Amino acid sequence: MKPEGIVYLVGAGPGDIGLFTLRGIELLRQAEVVIYDGLVNPDLLGYAPITAEIICADKHDRSRCVSQEHINAQLLAKAREGKRVVRLKGGDPCLFGRGGEEAEMLAEAGIAFELVPGVSSFHSVPAYAGIPVTHRRYNSSVTVVTGHGHGAAPLDQLDWAQLARVPGTLVVLMGMKNMRQITAALIDGGRAPETPAAVISQGTTPRQRTVIGTLATIAALVEQADLPTPAVTVIGEVVNLRKKVAWFERRNGKSHALPVPSLNSAAIKQPERHLPATPSPLVTR
Amino acid sequence: MKPEGIVYLVGAGPGDIGLFTLRGIELLRQAEVVIYDGLVNPDLLGYAPITAEIICADKHDRSRCVSQEHINAQLLAKAREGKRVVRLKGGDPCLFGRGGEEAEMLAEAGIAFELVPGVSSFHSVPAYAGIPVTHRRYNSSVTVVTGHGHGAAPLDQLDWAQLARVPGTLVVLMGMKNMRQITAALIDGGRAPETPAAVISQGTTPRQRTVIGTLATIAALVEQADLPTPAVTVIGEVVNLRKKVAWFERRNGKSHALPVPSLNSAAIKQPERHLPATPSPLVTR
Repeated sequence: MKPEGIVYLVGAGPGDIGLFTLRGIELLRQAEVVIYDGLVNPDLLGYAPITAEIICADKHDRSRCVSQEHINAQLLAKAREGKRVVRLKGGDPCLFGRGGEEAEMLAEAGIAFELVPGVSSFHSVPAYAGIPVTHRRYNSSVTVVTGHGHGAAPLDQLDWAQLARVPGTLVVLMGMKNMRQITAALIDGGRAPETPAAVISQGTTPRQRTVIGTLATIAALVEQADLPTPAVTVIGEVVNLRKKVAWFERRNGKSHALPVPSLNSAAIKQPERHLPATPSPLVTR
Repeated sequence: MKPEGIVYLVGAGPGDIGLFTLRGIELLRQAEVVIYDGLVNPDLLGYAPITAEIICADKHDRSRCVSQEHINAQLLAKAREGKRVVRLKGGDPCLFGRGGEEAEMLAEAGIAFELVPGVSSFHSVPAYAGIPVTHRRYNSSVTVVTGHGHGAAPLDQLDWAQLARVPGTLVVLMGMKNMRQITAALIDGGRAPETPAAVISQGTTPRQRTVIGTLATIAALVEQADLPTPAVTVIGEVVNLRKKVAWFERRNGKSHALPVPSLNSAAIKQPERHLPATPSPLVTR
């Protein structure tokens, strides 16, 4: 009898391998097929078995664009062959990652699947730039939006006007190409032009770079700096915290990316303490 | 000479240990002091060395409430003793976790620190309930807000009216106590009363429970169901995807929590393939 296939929709996190999950690494180690997006740190693929089939599904590279329909067909075909398929996506699969669409398609086809959330770049990249996206002194909400059509319906002028009036931090993913239009629409919609803004390029990697300005100036500053994608844009008072909180770039952007062998290190084999499954009322030992 | 202390502000993820990060586990294994919040899965503490000092800092239990000032003082004191301190917080430290405040305080005191992002409950808990918080068919943005004063300034009526008009999914964290006021304020602000809504209690754990309704009915339904906290509330059309996408509860909510020894398993010692550091143009092997 043919074994039943399964697809794991796994978030790879923002780039630093240290931010990948335990469940993700466990599944990658057991994968028979890995289908990965262009924004995934390729070092992660080293965790897959040497026998696994590795398939690149880069929707962002125009020269060899792979359509969502083609990816869906591959997921179905591999699962129907009875394979354990890991579908590896940058950040989190269900936060502008089309994981919801792929899950829906698999459910309709009667294929078993599992959603394995990841660390999203929208808050982890700002954190590596010293910008906590929320802070009690400044806000009680954060809104995350995509800056172009990839992964979500494009926003119209009316939507940006509404977003301009939302209290709290605004984070724009994939907004580099439309930065001038987006910032102009937000100012038109009523956001103060002097609102602090930051753009972080290739965040959580050793190539991380951050440009700071205001809603009025950031588009021009980013053009001058010629920042490569991917980038995360943060708009709000929390950007000012960077002056104090920046920590990653100060130590030369040394990433915490774990070398693959470090998981095998002696530290991992130390004796474990087994604690009760419910929180104990202990305070200090 | 006294060694220099350091504080790691680490996100513990939503509950399922499988969603903890590689960097988090590495730091926990080397910790000399662990100061953890009430919402952290206590099984994680088993990864700390047997010699580590474990301190509970539960801000949510009124019977033995630990103030933020007391936590700050402890972080400073332990770091000044030269200790490697892991400050373990539920979800992500900078997304309503006060990690930004603690980082700011440490920076002002001249103490080294590192922010280690985690998987936030705001999207991972809905994903475990079969609700992707974004989907191209429905939205291009998601707004996350806290439902009460813990971790952020409380929202006033005007803010809720603005939030009611934001396009996209709205996720409310810690909103159980004020559910009636919040849903009423959103309807007053213009959100359609028939907007689908879901409340997920103790998400990603084997005790996960989900209640589905509309903006108009969800508060009463949650009261009837007598759901325990913590809970995540999702408001928007994406809630309807649950009918198809729900996967975790269908297999009896079996959590992927990895037993501690699984990290030591033979799978981890298999030969690794070393791939180039830049994405290779290979498509299929």
